[in-house]
Amino acid sequence: MVNSSGVSVDKKISMAVIQRLPRYYRYLGDLLDRDITRISSKELSERMGITASQMRQDLNNFGSFGQQGYGYSVELLYGEIKRILGLDRTYHLIIIGAGNFGQTLANYRNFAERGYVFRAMFDTNPAVIGTYVNGIEVRGIVHLESYLANNLVDVAALTLPADAVASVVQTLSDGGVKGIWNFSNSEIKAPPNVVLENVRLMDSLMTLTYRVNQEDIVCRLKAAEGYD
Amino acid sequence: MVNSSGVSVDKKISMAVIQRLPRYYRYLGDLLDRDITRISSKELSERMGITASQMRQDLNNFGSFGQQGYGYSVELLYGEIKRILGLDRTYHLIIIGAGNFGQTLANYRNFAERGYVFRAMFDTNPAVIGTYVNGIEVRGIVHLESYLANNLVDVAALTLPADAVASVVQTLSDGGVKGIWNFSNSEIKAPPNVVLENVRLMDSLMTLTYRVNQEDIVCRLKAAEGYD
Repeated sequence: MVNSSGVSVDKKISMAVIQRLPRYYRYLGDLLDRDITRISSKELSERMGITASQMRQDLNNFGSFGQQGYGYSVELLYGEIKRILGLDRTYHLIIIGAGNFGQTLANYRNFAERGYVFRAMFDTNPAVIGTYVNGIEVRGIVHLESYLANNLVDVAALTLPADAVASVVQTLSDGGVKGIWNFSNSEIKAPPNVVLENVRLMDSLMTLTYRVNQEDIVCRLKAAEGYD
Repeated sequence: MVNSSGVSVDKKISMAVIQRLPRYYRYLGDLLDRDITRISSKELSERMGITASQMRQDLNNFGSFGQQGYGYSVELLYGEIKRILGLDRTYHLIIIGAGNFGQTLANYRNFAERGYVFRAMFDTNPAVIGTYVNGIEVRGIVHLESYLANNLVDVAALTLPADAVASVVQTLSDGGVKGIWNFSNSEIKAPPNVVLENVRLMDSLMTLTYRVNQEDIVCRLKAAEGYD
């Protein structure tokens, strides 16, 4: 039975669960694309590489999905998770920083498909101000404050160099932006009521090579000790 | 006292600790840039937003750093973490997919500064094969296998569309690539002995807006119930 109650707010949902929700959404969307209408918790959890009990526990945070012995309706579960994730509405996205990375974000097809609408772009560099990225004119950062006074913005993506970031964060917060998606290399202190999500490509790459090195070391030690 | 032993392999280091190492490295590098030579565990941990005891526990995984009542030598600790992360050598990086995102990675200054050297780029699209990205010629993906037979590659970044990825992963693995940095939207099964690191921008954005929505709901409920 699919629960139709709203998002649960009376208990704290752990970040680990929250971070798995987009994965559920992605997997279920994938099943829908392949016209699979029903799936058992065993099968879905196996595809995702988690245990069936972990998955049931995750989904129980939001109500009771599925039917004993009958599995989940892919479409209903997909719709519910979409609603839980708040993807049944659109979000206005602005991008601060019109460099390579900002331009990549501005041209990312998936965003629009999921309801994230790219609305404006700002930069400090006179050479790019006035140019167009994916149909949007790049504005000078001095216009950010007045833009925010006149437009609702849900998320600002920050792709500026680290040293330019702190004052922008304050302007965004003062202007009512609730979500900051930080790609810059600096440690930002999020103002109260602002949710901050950091994406650190360099950290991710360093973690990867660290893990590769560890595997190598373990292999070499094992070989030296004469066992596999 | 700074420990000079190698990377510890006799105990399993948790992913949480591994993922914090690049942050330590970033913070310490930042201190070095500002000519700060010594820092207490209290101060360093406060800057990083973790407890001093958590930090000591993290660093104890790798040996004994710092001196009671005297703090850490920033330079020594930075050097040790650099070595632990394996950043005292260079890594050869290839990029599969010469689209927007692949080009952003190819032009990312920080990589080279940290010892990640961009060596080759491959794509399936005849329109981009033969063009140059950051001084490197884009090759057809049919040449990937022979390239790997003749060149040592540490990490391959995958920025292809999801449906093109599976066969490439096998070619990379057969060709001896040990680390795959996956930016594509597909769920890859890593072959044995290949370390896989996924970067999912869409998941990160969905997590962000979910958290923003939760804050909003909590605020509105509290307001409706008459307390702050």
